[in-house]
Amino acid sequence: MRKQKLVINGERLRKSLEQFADFGRTEGNGVTRLALSEEDRLARDHFVSCCKELGMEVKVDDMGNIYATLAGVEDKPPIVIGSHLDSVKKGGRFDGVLGVLAGLEIVRTLVDHQVKPQVPITIVNMTNEEGARFEPSMMASGVLSGKFDKAAMMEKRDTDGVTFREALDEIGYAGDERNRLREAAAFLELHIEQGPVLESEGLPVGVVECVLGMVCYEIEVSGESDHAGTTPMGMRKDALFAANHFITKARQQLNQLDPELVYTMGRMNVWPNIHTVIPNKVVFTLEARHKDAEEIRRVEEIVQGIATMEDHEGCEVSVTKLWSRDTVWFDEEICNQLEQSVKSLDYPYKRMVSGAGHDAQFLASYIPSAMVFVRSKNGKSHCEEELTTWEDCEKGVNVLLETVMTMLEKKA
Amino acid sequence: MRKQKLVINGERLRKSLEQFADFGRTEGNGVTRLALSEEDRLARDHFVSCCKELGMEVKVDDMGNIYATLAGVEDKPPIVIGSHLDSVKKGGRFDGVLGVLAGLEIVRTLVDHQVKPQVPITIVNMTNEEGARFEPSMMASGVLSGKFDKAAMMEKRDTDGVTFREALDEIGYAGDERNRLREAAAFLELHIEQGPVLESEGLPVGVVECVLGMVCYEIEVSGESDHAGTTPMGMRKDALFAANHFITKARQQLNQLDPELVYTMGRMNVWPNIHTVIPNKVVFTLEARHKDAEEIRRVEEIVQGIATMEDHEGCEVSVTKLWSRDTVWFDEEICNQLEQSVKSLDYPYKRMVSGAGHDAQFLASYIPSAMVFVRSKNGKSHCEEELTTWEDCEKGVNVLLETVMTMLEKKA
Repeated sequence: MRKQKLVINGERLRKSLEQFADFGRTEGNGVTRLALSEEDRLARDHFVSCCKELGMEVKVDDMGNIYATLAGVEDKPPIVIGSHLDSVKKGGRFDGVLGVLAGLEIVRTLVDHQVKPQVPITIVNMTNEEGARFEPSMMASGVLSGKFDKAAMMEKRDTDGVTFREALDEIGYAGDERNRLREAAAFLELHIEQGPVLESEGLPVGVVECVLGMVCYEIEVSGESDHAGTTPMGMRKDALFAANHFITKARQQLNQLDPELVYTMGRMNVWPNIHTVIPNKVVFTLEARHKDAEEIRRVEEIVQGIATMEDHEGCEVSVTKLWSRDTVWFDEEICNQLEQSVKSLDYPYKRMVSGAGHDAQFLASYIPSAMVFVRSKNGKSHCEEELTTWEDCEKGVNVLLETVMTMLEKKA
Repeated sequence: MRKQKLVINGERLRKSLEQFADFGRTEGNGVTRLALSEEDRLARDHFVSCCKELGMEVKVDDMGNIYATLAGVEDKPPIVIGSHLDSVKKGGRFDGVLGVLAGLEIVRTLVDHQVKPQVPITIVNMTNEEGARFEPSMMASGVLSGKFDKAAMMEKRDTDGVTFREALDEIGYAGDERNRLREAAAFLELHIEQGPVLESEGLPVGVVECVLGMVCYEIEVSGESDHAGTTPMGMRKDALFAANHFITKARQQLNQLDPELVYTMGRMNVWPNIHTVIPNKVVFTLEARHKDAEEIRRVEEIVQGIATMEDHEGCEVSVTKLWSRDTVWFDEEICNQLEQSVKSLDYPYKRMVSGAGHDAQFLASYIPSAMVFVRSKNGKSHCEEELTTWEDCEKGVNVLLETVMTMLEKKA
């Protein structure tokens, strides 16, 4: 048994969060800190100098990921804490940066209390999690875990035509491939929930068991464009009517599946999109997420079943699966440790799933990983209104600290 | 009783149509002859020279409308035949030009047979019926009938910033307001149907009784954009779902109305239109056309009724009536004369309505007017595939000629 339970300095965490919000602060009190931008560079530089002040060793890898390491008693694989400093355009002050500053606050607390950890503690800032400037999102963790091809990622361009490689050079964060995160005892990521579940249940924190598997379809409905005034209803091949019917059918059937399934038709375009012309083409996406592969398989059945119906009001329907990904289950042992930590701190919590993607889901393929969520006000994220209270941020970091302490004890 | 029944020279009509299709012919055998373009000027010049060859007097008014008049025995209000020479971009070889060349072929036939009409015969080419280069459509007939303000029309700009006034000057067809069409015995417009009704019933010609009244709404559905992966279904305000539900409801109810009602949701835009984000806004149009004002009133009731439903899946719905127009009924006496002419020529026909707008609907406000439709292949128009057989074109012109002959006899 430890003699004392360490807790972080909530006031210092708040100040750190406020300070980092200055790097790209928007008029609406949000943040625009696109990956590898000048704002990102300023935030990175400040993060590096904070870490160096704590006596940490800072390394950068070839994807621009920053690793700051507090040496351990033993030179063993580290406990890694982190997330990302980049944001979307007009994003919030918490998404990503909270997980990095959690690491910083934990190390500061250890240093405050002159705790020399048994194994090294590494804070990581993963490059370009958002994919807002250079697609795809989770780019760097994708390269580290072998999901994405580095050479292809280096040539990705932003809307101004600047490549990822050029931008990385420009801000001075092109490091060495040998510095990449390879072996670690654990990867812990604290993140805002980005959804309304914790708030609606009155819970400050959640232990995340998995990142949901998903499937995304593009559905193209082809009809015939005729004059809206001269074509009797019975002689039309209206692609919008057919698409509307498809969506209605899909909703009826998808609503019969597990209530935890989420699905969205987020993108829809209509051609020629003129009020006096019957639409001849409608293309829309249908994406669905659930933790169980079986449930995703049922979605597939429903979508293909509707597509192969004989009657689409005279139109043709084709379905393309744009992509799918399997549910990523986090390390059960770490999840249990996180849960024990929350309980020991007496915070109301639940075990939950993540519907959004995070770097941890890629790193989980080769490092025992898990995540903690903190409550999002109105479930909002990726917008200036994004808000998590200082108290909830503090609770989330305390959960991570408590877990790190437990892990260190076990290593000792 | 006339001694002989005049009929036109079908071969000459075909050659005229083919010749005019050269003015702006596209690779796909269609026509691009935008109003007041160089192609329009060439077609106008050729039309004027054809008329002058026939000894007709040619005048141009301040909207660029061309009037070619064959003198009558008496200097009385003329019988006017015409339509428009302009086309949409990549339009067909028949829309508009057929109605102008019908007039030319009728005068040629009269001249062939040395018929001096009792009253003058005027062929008119109305400027910018299509509104494809300068909005709105039916611009010149709108000004003549007092629906549109001339000064405002003169300042309308094409996508290159050229005003209608400048373009009119440029091609040399800015004439005198005193030449405007004012008083006439009748206005007769032959036009392709632009719909599939005649073809589906195996009829070459139709006598048009009216241009349908219509109403056009813009419906805006406002929801909330949340993350597609993290927001449980029950906590969403999905504007696309609500719009889809609105359209389904509207279709159910509109389909209960008179089967002749036509309605279309031709334009729909979704925001932010990203596959991973729940749509927060959908805006779509709903337009409906029917000859009876009562039926249009029922459409209004249905649309407003759905809009004021309490449940739009958590979204707000607002309906804006963009515009409406009443049904324009053509002159009953002329319609009867047209029908008699068709019968005397032994052509299968029907009395029908026009779902599309035509210059005749504006001119009908001060000149006894009516229209004849000829069969459109597959109901297509405003595209390169637009097709009416030479035989059907010939029949349509013969109907007009027979009607003109009957009118002249009555005037004698």
